[in-house]
Amino acid sequence: MSLAWLRRPAAPTDADAAARARQRQLQLTKPRGSLGRFEDLAVVLAGLQGVEQPRVDNVRVAIFAADHGITVHGVSAYPQCVTRQMVGNFAAGGAAASVLAGETGASLEVIDVGTLGEGECPAGVIANRCGPGTADFAITAAMTERQLESALEAGRVAVVRARAAGSDLFIGGEMGIGNTTSAAALACALLSAPAEALAGPGSGLGPAGVQKKVAVIARALAVHQGRLGDPLEALRRLGGFEIAALVGSFSACAQQHVPVLVDGFVAGIAALISARLCPGASNWMLHAHRSAEPGHGRVLAALAATPLLDLGFRLGEGSGALVALPLLRLACALHAGMATFAEAGVADG
Amino acid sequence: MSLAWLRRPAAPTDADAAARARQRQLQLTKPRGSLGRFEDLAVVLAGLQGVEQPRVDNVRVAIFAADHGITVHGVSAYPQCVTRQMVGNFAAGGAAASVLAGETGASLEVIDVGTLGEGECPAGVIANRCGPGTADFAITAAMTERQLESALEAGRVAVVRARAAGSDLFIGGEMGIGNTTSAAALACALLSAPAEALAGPGSGLGPAGVQKKVAVIARALAVHQGRLGDPLEALRRLGGFEIAALVGSFSACAQQHVPVLVDGFVAGIAALISARLCPGASNWMLHAHRSAEPGHGRVLAALAATPLLDLGFRLGEGSGALVALPLLRLACALHAGMATFAEAGVADG
Repeated sequence: MSLAWLRRPAAPTDADAAARARQRQLQLTKPRGSLGRFEDLAVVLAGLQGVEQPRVDNVRVAIFAADHGITVHGVSAYPQCVTRQMVGNFAAGGAAASVLAGETGASLEVIDVGTLGEGECPAGVIANRCGPGTADFAITAAMTERQLESALEAGRVAVVRARAAGSDLFIGGEMGIGNTTSAAALACALLSAPAEALAGPGSGLGPAGVQKKVAVIARALAVHQGRLGDPLEALRRLGGFEIAALVGSFSACAQQHVPVLVDGFVAGIAALISARLCPGASNWMLHAHRSAEPGHGRVLAALAATPLLDLGFRLGEGSGALVALPLLRLACALHAGMATFAEAGVADG
Repeated sequence: MSLAWLRRPAAPTDADAAARARQRQLQLTKPRGSLGRFEDLAVVLAGLQGVEQPRVDNVRVAIFAADHGITVHGVSAYPQCVTRQMVGNFAAGGAAASVLAGETGASLEVIDVGTLGEGECPAGVIANRCGPGTADFAITAAMTERQLESALEAGRVAVVRARAAGSDLFIGGEMGIGNTTSAAALACALLSAPAEALAGPGSGLGPAGVQKKVAVIARALAVHQGRLGDPLEALRRLGGFEIAALVGSFSACAQQHVPVLVDGFVAGIAALISARLCPGASNWMLHAHRSAEPGHGRVLAALAATPLLDLGFRLGEGSGALVALPLLRLACALHAGMATFAEAGVADG
């Protein structure tokens, strides 16, 4: 296995298709610009899909789940066993992401990239395990190089499957007790910011819990000091298997012409790492929502991204992206289905 | 006809159903609060519909269309004939609202409450005409008392039809060249604000056009000075037939247990008037989006409302509300469909 693929540039977007879509927007029976961001969405999707009238009918949501050694420091409101329990809940249809995938008709894949726990994965879960959770990154690197490669590859092959299924949009979700600690540590490394600027309550820490989380991250950053300049090495040292899988999936999407709808804070960090490694990857990313997790704003700013929604979500699982999915579809439906001024016999200003 | 019905209080909401819904939210397999505003939406809708698990399956969108005498002053980027042309476009399925209603399965009614133009309404349009457009409110009252009563009644009977059709949510849309001038003038009267704080580009005026619009509104406010203290009289003097119909529909919804999803700036002004006339009406209103029209922010603040979306829309027609509709449905689906911690065997913190 090699990691050279990760640094290959993104596919070019289709400026001609985007220009034709922009021209079409100007002819639709509405004042120019009056559908705001929906007009831009249709144009951007046209450029990504290479057609004047884009569609997001066939959507794959891939949820990567893994455990985190850092949880020994009490950085989460939930016990580590919940990761594996939630994997079962995804597969059984009871989790938020399962309900949203069902309602939106998105095809849901759940991929265990390294949960802790005894026995087989629940039925319906793809096993692509890179280890029994990561190591405690306050002491040592979270992953070996081989584990990092495996996790990135798990993301890449999820995109190969999505393409084979004809997906015209990819959503990457994650589940992993402790993973906002990992994501915040990565954000600190990538944005050269202190832990207190990027750590938040995650699944529900109180102020004392957040303070402890900040201290754990600060300690970890000191341990790995001087080794965090390369985003890939930062990912190996501070990341999680599911975060690495998201990085691999986002880069593969950008390289293989698949638009990505990025979820919240944890997925946002993976998007930022992907964008730093794969030139042009950010062109393939749409951002669904602004998470309530306070660090997300800085991650979005680093990506120059303005998300579609701001509803106070902080769940992960791809849930914010699935909620934004109907907006993309309606933007495409308006773009394709509205009459032009000429067709409708309406005076154009 | 009498207007006494307009000041009857709204129906009470069901605090018990809301409390049961709040209790259910606490048991679903997610960190408490992690679905942000979706959790509140489910609880509010439960209180309005009087059931623990609300639904918004059957949605009526009623678009009221009318013309405005104020357009003689050149306050719109489009000629007045566009109102009637767009009524035809709604009915033919080519307008944004038509496409969105089709995609979301909302049943669309188009009601001509006073457009200008020769001949019959297009097929599929309900004729409930209150006059051939309003009078120029820079000179005189926009409507007679009888016209005001007719327009309010047109809104009320639209709600009677929606209830008869079993609608569990009502969306009021509007079309009328010149109606952001009318709406801004009403906002000035209700909020005691100057025209420059509330007038905006509407369908696409440039800075000089906005300046002219501000001057026209300021002149009109001077003409009607001292007569604008009662919201109903302000509506008669400065309003439009479609705005009055929206007021009537929103008050009727609140009195008859039908939740309303309020669209943008023009619908927002109608919501504010309804809330001032009908005690408790605002309890029945959800606000879909923040319009790009600059005056909308002050209207929302007066209603103590935080809308769900902020996508730079400024089209009207109910389009912003129809775009927010899938969010309400997903909030209800999550509320009803997610497993509880007990059901899923997931540890709760």
